[in-house]
Amino acid sequence: MTTYRPHPPHQAHVHSASELMAAGRSLLLYYQRLVSPLVRRHNSSISSEAAGLKVSLVDPFNAVRVRLAETAHWTIEEFKEKMSFHIDQWISEKRSAVWLHVPLVHCSLLNVAVLDCRFNIHHSLSNEIVLSRWLRQDTVNKIPPFASHQVGVCGVVYREDTSEILVTQDKYKPARWKFPGGISEFAEDITDTAEREVLEETGIMAKTQSIIAFRQHHHLSIAFGQSDLYFICRMKPFTYTIRPCTSEILKCQWMGIRELQASPLATILTNRIAVMMLRGAKNGFRELDIKWEDLPSPADSNQTYRLFGKRT
Amino acid sequence: MTTYRPHPPHQAHVHSASELMAAGRSLLLYYQRLVSPLVRRHNSSISSEAAGLKVSLVDPFNAVRVRLAETAHWTIEEFKEKMSFHIDQWISEKRSAVWLHVPLVHCSLLNVAVLDCRFNIHHSLSNEIVLSRWLRQDTVNKIPPFASHQVGVCGVVYREDTSEILVTQDKYKPARWKFPGGISEFAEDITDTAEREVLEETGIMAKTQSIIAFRQHHHLSIAFGQSDLYFICRMKPFTYTIRPCTSEILKCQWMGIRELQASPLATILTNRIAVMMLRGAKNGFRELDIKWEDLPSPADSNQTYRLFGKRT
Repeated sequence: MTTYRPHPPHQAHVHSASELMAAGRSLLLYYQRLVSPLVRRHNSSISSEAAGLKVSLVDPFNAVRVRLAETAHWTIEEFKEKMSFHIDQWISEKRSAVWLHVPLVHCSLLNVAVLDCRFNIHHSLSNEIVLSRWLRQDTVNKIPPFASHQVGVCGVVYREDTSEILVTQDKYKPARWKFPGGISEFAEDITDTAEREVLEETGIMAKTQSIIAFRQHHHLSIAFGQSDLYFICRMKPFTYTIRPCTSEILKCQWMGIRELQASPLATILTNRIAVMMLRGAKNGFRELDIKWEDLPSPADSNQTYRLFGKRT
Repeated sequence: MTTYRPHPPHQAHVHSASELMAAGRSLLLYYQRLVSPLVRRHNSSISSEAAGLKVSLVDPFNAVRVRLAETAHWTIEEFKEKMSFHIDQWISEKRSAVWLHVPLVHCSLLNVAVLDCRFNIHHSLSNEIVLSRWLRQDTVNKIPPFASHQVGVCGVVYREDTSEILVTQDKYKPARWKFPGGISEFAEDITDTAEREVLEETGIMAKTQSIIAFRQHHHLSIAFGQSDLYFICRMKPFTYTIRPCTSEILKCQWMGIRELQASPLATILTNRIAVMMLRGAKNGFRELDIKWEDLPSPADSNQTYRLFGKRT
């Protein structure tokens, strides 16, 4: 763990009811000892709230979170002066970093925040831009990066009765046999993406059985220069009539595994998967399958996460 | 594939020299037939370049990419008028979408771009904010999302000579035994993150042998509300003296697998992995291991990607 984490200690390691209670106590103590005095100090000494700078959180990594109030009114000069004053103070208080949330209505302040106040743009979500600045000279910047990976999924839909796999040719990348698939939607499970994409592209309803492979690819232009993780799911069909999505799919058909493996139109990835499926068809898929179980989330007691691995 | 991809057809499916040549020809045709006339049309009829709106790409999905020139000068009213004029034209030309790149120097235009010109903020990279707008009323928005996942990695460093695993307690999440790890840096391979993080946190030099499990977790506050993929690597140490990073690690030690599995301080994840490692120590790790090979990238002939899966 090299990166600083911008949250109180209770949010990432709670595992049971007693843990939750302990975390609750620790959180209470944390706010009593750390956050409240700081917010009070800011409020009283420099009237941050009144000035439209809402100092809403100082986390155990000793960072400050500032939200610009939508209703605040400053000139660019006033903002620069105010922010410089605060930053000097936070440096003298040995704060590690500042998060600055800029609502769109104050977007004209972004340039001065970056050029004069030395913030970096960290990420943007809907109606605000979030900037950050690491304040400590004595340690490296430990501000964690924003999401770096796009997640894609494809489905290898295999008919046991005929030893055939569902293959497609994209309308915009013709002449290569591929598996139907696409990019995960926000907060969508890998296994669900496979089922949705196969249905949307081919009209085939299929159930994900396992993950059999995944790929990591960096510097992808189609991922806006970021990285890509692409998961290959083994799926079992429960309908067989193909109804391809005409706006995206040029060809779609069931093809024998051997024919697919030998086809000069198979991509390298398609070929590798065909070889795996040939072995699975012969020896069973137990060795190939990466299965999963859902476990309670330590970060949020209302949530689960999905753990994938070999069941030995 | 439900999402529209913002690039010419040559960039994501090239696999061989002949493919590359074919792609080159197709790209040439594509620019000759589609892009050049459009850019010329814009340049001549509405002087986009001169007006500071650089129309630089129309891709096969029929979208327009616009970069605001840093040197351009408009009032907010002029920008709104200009952009509305262009958008009406692109709608009448049946363009699918517009990408709008706003350099920081023009950040004051963001609010009007969102509120009046109905763009959405898509993502931000260093010194520009990228917005998008889907233009077609007759189909759903197919603009692909920006990176949605943070990637984390931990290392299960296992000493065969003593059947011990390297475990840590985080300074900020004490009283739980975990494996050393952290978030991947930009474009860093999973296996490399494991080696870097283990060394940084514990001083132990170790080599990644395989991935043995991974987790998908959505809506994580420490990932700014995005999703997280966390990979667990099996590693072999080649140094044994622990030198923990004092700013992050409270405790670090070698612990017997059985002791770890039975410890009430093990997280659920730590416990599951300990169970897997017990089986591996008994039966060998072949069944557990998800191995990899590097393959030539279809998107960029100078690059490789890493394909992970079971070697059956």
